[in-house]
Amino acid sequence: MKLLHIAFIIICLPIASLAQIQTHQHSRVIQFPDVPGYLTLSTDLHQHTVFSDGYVWPNIRVLEAAADSLDVISMTDHIEYLPHKEEIPPVNFNRSHELASQYALPYDLVVIQGAEITRGYPPGHTNALFIQDANLLNVPDSVDAFKEAKRQGAFLFWNHPDWFRDSDDAVATLHDLHRDFIKNDMLHGIEVVNDLTYSEEALQIALDQNLTIMGTSDIHGLVDWQYHVHEGGHRPVTLVFATERTTESIKEALFDRRTVVYFNDMLIGREQHVKPLLNACIALSSNGYIGTSTVLGVTLSNNSNALLILANQSEYNFRRDGDVIILPPGGEKKLEVKVLANLDEIKLDFQVMNAITAPGTHPEISIGVKAN
Amino acid sequence: MKLLHIAFIIICLPIASLAQIQTHQHSRVIQFPDVPGYLTLSTDLHQHTVFSDGYVWPNIRVLEAAADSLDVISMTDHIEYLPHKEEIPPVNFNRSHELASQYALPYDLVVIQGAEITRGYPPGHTNALFIQDANLLNVPDSVDAFKEAKRQGAFLFWNHPDWFRDSDDAVATLHDLHRDFIKNDMLHGIEVVNDLTYSEEALQIALDQNLTIMGTSDIHGLVDWQYHVHEGGHRPVTLVFATERTTESIKEALFDRRTVVYFNDMLIGREQHVKPLLNACIALSSNGYIGTSTVLGVTLSNNSNALLILANQSEYNFRRDGDVIILPPGGEKKLEVKVLANLDEIKLDFQVMNAITAPGTHPEISIGVKAN
Amino acid sequence: MKLLHIAFIIICLPIASLAQIQTHQHSRVIQFPDVPGYLTLSTDLHQHTVFSDGYVWPNIRVLEAAADSLDVISMTDHIEYLPHKEEIPPVNFNRSHELASQYALPYDLVVIQGAEITRGYPPGHTNALFIQDANLLNVPDSVDAFKEAKRQGAFLFWNHPDWFRDSDDAVATLHDLHRDFIKNDMLHGIEVVNDLTYSEEALQIALDQNLTIMGTSDIHGLVDWQYHVHEGGHRPVTLVFATERTTESIKEALFDRRTVVYFNDMLIGREQHVKPLLNACIALSSNGYIGTSTVLGVTLSNNSNALLILANQSEYNFRRDGDVIILPPGGEKKLEVKVLANLDEIKLDFQVMNAITAPGTHPEISIGVKAN
Amino acid sequence: MKLLHIAFIIICLPIASLAQIQTHQHSRVIQFPDVPGYLTLSTDLHQHTVFSDGYVWPNIRVLEAAADSLDVISMTDHIEYLPHKEEIPPVNFNRSHELASQYALPYDLVVIQGAEITRGYPPGHTNALFIQDANLLNVPDSVDAFKEAKRQGAFLFWNHPDWFRDSDDAVATLHDLHRDFIKNDMLHGIEVVNDLTYSEEALQIALDQNLTIMGTSDIHGLVDWQYHVHEGGHRPVTLVFATERTTESIKEALFDRRTVVYFNDMLIGREQHVKPLLNACIALSSNGYIGTSTVLGVTLSNNSNALLILANQSEYNFRRDGDVIILPPGGEKKLEVKVLANLDEIKLDFQVMNAITAPGTHPEISIGVKAN
Repeated sequence: MKLLHIAFIIICLPIASLAQIQTHQHSRVIQFPDVPGYLTLSTDLHQHTVFSDGYVWPNIRVLEAAADSLDVISMTDHIEYLPHKEEIPPVNFNRSHELASQYALPYDLVVIQGAEITRGYPPGHTNALFIQDANLLNVPDSVDAFKEAKRQGAFLFWNHPDWFRDSDDAVATLHDLHRDFIKNDMLHGIEVVNDLTYSEEALQIALDQNLTIMGTSDIHGLVDWQYHVHEGGHRPVTLVFATERTTESIKEALFDRRTVVYFNDMLIGREQHVKPLLNACIALSSNGYIGTSTVLGVTLSNNSNALLILANQSEYNFRRDGDVIILPPGGEKKLEVKVLANLDEIKLDFQVMNAITAPGTHPEISIGVKAN
Repeated sequence: MKLLHIAFIIICLPIASLAQIQTHQHSRVIQFPDVPGYLTLSTDLHQHTVFSDGYVWPNIRVLEAAADSLDVISMTDHIEYLPHKEEIPPVNFNRSHELASQYALPYDLVVIQGAEITRGYPPGHTNALFIQDANLLNVPDSVDAFKEAKRQGAFLFWNHPDWFRDSDDAVATLHDLHRDFIKNDMLHGIEVVNDLTYSEEALQIALDQNLTIMGTSDIHGLVDWQYHVHEGGHRPVTLVFATERTTESIKEALFDRRTVVYFNDMLIGREQHVKPLLNACIALSSNGYIGTSTVLGVTLSNNSNALLILANQSEYNFRRDGDVIILPPGGEKKLEVKVLANLDEIKLDFQVMNAITAPGTHPEISIGVKAN
Repeated sequence: MKLLHIAFIIICLPIASLAQIQTHQHSRVIQFPDVPGYLTLSTDLHQHTVFSDGYVWPNIRVLEAAADSLDVISMTDHIEYLPHKEEIPPVNFNRSHELASQYALPYDLVVIQGAEITRGYPPGHTNALFIQDANLLNVPDSVDAFKEAKRQGAFLFWNHPDWFRDSDDAVATLHDLHRDFIKNDMLHGIEVVNDLTYSEEALQIALDQNLTIMGTSDIHGLVDWQYHVHEGGHRPVTLVFATERTTESIKEALFDRRTVVYFNDMLIGREQHVKPLLNACIALSSNGYIGTSTVLGVTLSNNSNALLILANQSEYNFRRDGDVIILPPGGEKKLEVKVLANLDEIKLDFQVMNAITAPGTHPEISIGVKAN
Repeated sequence: MKLLHIAFIIICLPIASLAQIQTHQHSRVIQFPDVPGYLTLSTDLHQHTVFSDGYVWPNIRVLEAAADSLDVISMTDHIEYLPHKEEIPPVNFNRSHELASQYALPYDLVVIQGAEITRGYPPGHTNALFIQDANLLNVPDSVDAFKEAKRQGAFLFWNHPDWFRDSDDAVATLHDLHRDFIKNDMLHGIEVVNDLTYSEEALQIALDQNLTIMGTSDIHGLVDWQYHVHEGGHRPVTLVFATERTTESIKEALFDRRTVVYFNDMLIGREQHVKPLLNACIALSSNGYIGTSTVLGVTLSNNSNALLILANQSEYNFRRDGDVIILPPGGEKKLEVKVLANLDEIKLDFQVMNAITAPGTHPEISIGVKAN
């Protein structure tokens, strides 16, 4: 006989908890918690304006970034592809960066100088970041452009290596020229995510060639429209783990390959970067053993923008849930763990199914919690 | 150079597709598609009213079922536990069923006569369905009550076998008395889901003992409050695969163990029942090869109330997504499959991570699609 | 030339203000601010349970009231109409009140003992509140029932005087019997609102006969369903202006006719009660003169559950709005007042179009604000 | 006694009607029904791009208009104010119009050639529409610019006459120069609404001087951000009543002053234009007399984007509502009219409180409906 029905119903009054409200209230902010030793910076390092083939003035890019709470952006207008050149003569390839930098002054936003070296395949399109003068990249020979970028100390990454124009099967393929560039310190990263696409093959190339894993919007129109932001979508970003919120520190982090790409609720990166990030995102707290039972109430909370899909690998199962759990962005999930004994401390292990450390590979995390 | 940016942006106009609207518009209806050879009926076969320890008149149970679009319900008031007996004297244990049956007349709703045999552990609480006279179950000895239920042709299932009152560790444990009942055709099913709980151990018992897998609400208060229906929650139901929408046919299906439990976005049942259900829920259609590429656009659609978590097991990967995909309830997901060749027909294989056919076991489905 | 466009756009970043969030986030709570000298108590003093012709046990009525944040309720089951009498024998007409009182103990909720004297027209149905024993009202003659209620010190009000069963034209009409009752202190109030109906004629009768203006749900089923609470609806309530949160004080307030009915975003009552309530609900604060102009920015805020429709009667007009303004529940509205001079203090006058002090009559309020 | 409670509750099942869904599902589309003899065209005839002081390329303006379902737009870049002239040299003042016209080809969108003559006060800023060559307006003397515009057959309207830069009290004031322009057919309209402002004084000037009533966005940044479109906001538009969807027909309509401004849920215009529009927006249908009563059920529906506030002026009152009613955009409102007799046909009269035909003046409409 269930003797406590009154109390039971009282608990179930239709009043949404704070956690639920937090989850339902859509926010466009893209922010992840810091990890031990590093700030976690949200970056979008591939963007276009009217100064090449984009459709907005640089201030709109700054305002979009502010709305998304990004930490770092770069205007990477094409050097060689200028469909508006009749209206906007190409007298200064640094101009979109200069304007964005001015517009960014009221915001806590780092603007990195960049440009897109836009050549046929190979090498295809390549972003050069941390340059000093984009005008000097405007040279006939593509290898010369890369050499000049290197001379300026640029961090160079291969854009949309899976682009249809370059490959009918959308498979990123490394050309000898890329191998040469990599060997000669003229190619450091690769877009695993560009705009709406994700390339498993690009991820494999990044791992094989020891390249920085990048994800960018490559936005030309409006971020809000392209990513259906008001229906809960978001642009791809590269999370950069930097010691400081400075251009120098971001540069050091990119050269050191300390990145995780956040796109479409996926977190893509090397295991040594994804796992600390997941550990920073997920917290576990105890609500104590239920009554006189050996069932421990715990709360998993997700301190990030990403929905997380967790597959239970623990030695325990749950009283209310199966072994695959969705932890909503910014939300929490109460679990009742069947401990079978009154342990002072337990450990839960989860495989995070939407985190990716290599094609088809998902990291495991382990979280301990004291019962009281 | 991206030459088609104008067309590109045009595609991305901020107008939500029909599919998105369908998904966002919350519906409380619990309905799943039929499977080959059977109707898929949504049932809630464990409910209480003021006639035992519930808090509503039977018409509210009928209206809740109509709101949820259930096909089958049963009023299973306790025989032995009657906290309102001072106000509602126990003169007729059939009364809540009689009233529910009358109230159900305007609806397409089958009401099955039932009662809860409410004894200490063992055997604990047991529902008897398809009885003719609940008054005859009101006998001192619990075994006599089961015998009478059997005499009336009842389908009997063990309620909340993981109940705290019976086990401190919330682990369902089979007692010798249950084994006897099973052997003597006096116990046919077991609740793997009761109200807000799911028991892996109960599922294992069902599989080991060849019992029908059951999930019920055991509702005493209001369904809307208990399951936060207006925030998207739903009550647990047992999907019953019956040849007809009749009491006889439902009875035959339950005795034949043709059930899948739907709870908390889990689909729990034997593989031979879960797989046809998943195949009925998920459809795959082709949008053709993209341009001149070997990338095939397809649309996965989910014709059910359950969110589905799919892990790609195909020989192909996707151009926009990782290997774990969320297919929203009543929604769809467009995929771009990197086929690498212009095949006329392809096959996609997915493990459905939130379908459960045994503890920790998730079924795989395979879906073919013609390219054109 | 607009020289400040950059700053302008910065202001317009797509980040919703707190006020907007407050407004959009639906709350079912029915609470109004206190007025000078009185607490404003939300009451629903006409409700049914299974003990007459309702469909829920009294605890559900308590939980509904808690969910709505009501202050005062009454179970007013019929004495004479008992369709469930076969199942629930009428041995104690006080029982639903006794049970509700027990269930209400954990809540800050006053439960007033009541009953519905249910007779043919005239007098029709009448609620008696603050009685001590409902059983004594169960007498053959209706006048005797009223006399007994009076003997117990009851506050008596005429229910749904516009009921179709009593009048084909839905027009409340006073009968000689009512006049007698009023004269002899056996009728003190009248429902101007019952369930989903509002009666202008009943309001006129209340004003003409000096009766207390009442509004109640007369709920039989579920409040959530009847008033579409999850789509933003609410039950009708009588706001009672009482000196204390006690039965005695509420009784004194009702006899003194200190009520306003809140229904369907209307506030219906005598001017001397509606105006202080509106003044408590609406606040006006200054944001200062804009730049060097004579335009004063002000914020109107609505500290109530009711949407308010304000018609500007001030000597000023507004720079962004017309003369009719909607002030959302719990929300605010920024106005720019064209003062035409740098006055230290201004006064705004509004007619509140959805407040009703007599048929077709809407009160005016006047709010002053200092510019700095 | 209420004998029909079961049926009653059945009606109140928590299933939202189609009308409710229609209302809740936010749409950004700005469209109003046609009126007798004319198409009702949604226009925004004052917009900026990067070619003067705006921040987007002309294609974004076209896409915004398509998203809002506008019928007519105009790029009215400043002739004299060119803050981006260093990057975009002013070689062709027609260029933003040329580009917008090309981008508009896939859409059902009329693009009218325009420019903003941008001078100090008086005359202040003036839009010239239907011109052939904006370059010819680039002359030193402002009167010469107006003369050239007139020579090209332009429709000229005064922009933001209440602009702070020109008047500290935000009061539109007619200067002798404006009177001269009006007399000499060089000024035909006036912005009563510009961006987020509404000017009662400008409306009075329009009525006194027989000018066309205009409302425009004057957008420089993004429409979605400036008007909080995803929270339900919208840009101001001028509804133009034209015989055909052609430039010529729109021009004729503007010269003939056939406009209504839609802004912030206000409909502002001359009575002869507002009343037919309201009659086209509001429909009334009968649901028949209720039972054997003399209460007629009717449905008011709102076939427009504007929320409408209706004050009942009929000889009847309503059984469920007071005399002020909100009719939601695209939604409907059921009324129960207390007719007091079984008339075959009735007439309802409403003052539309948020329609404005002169400062403080709201039009009345009268709608008849047959009972069966």
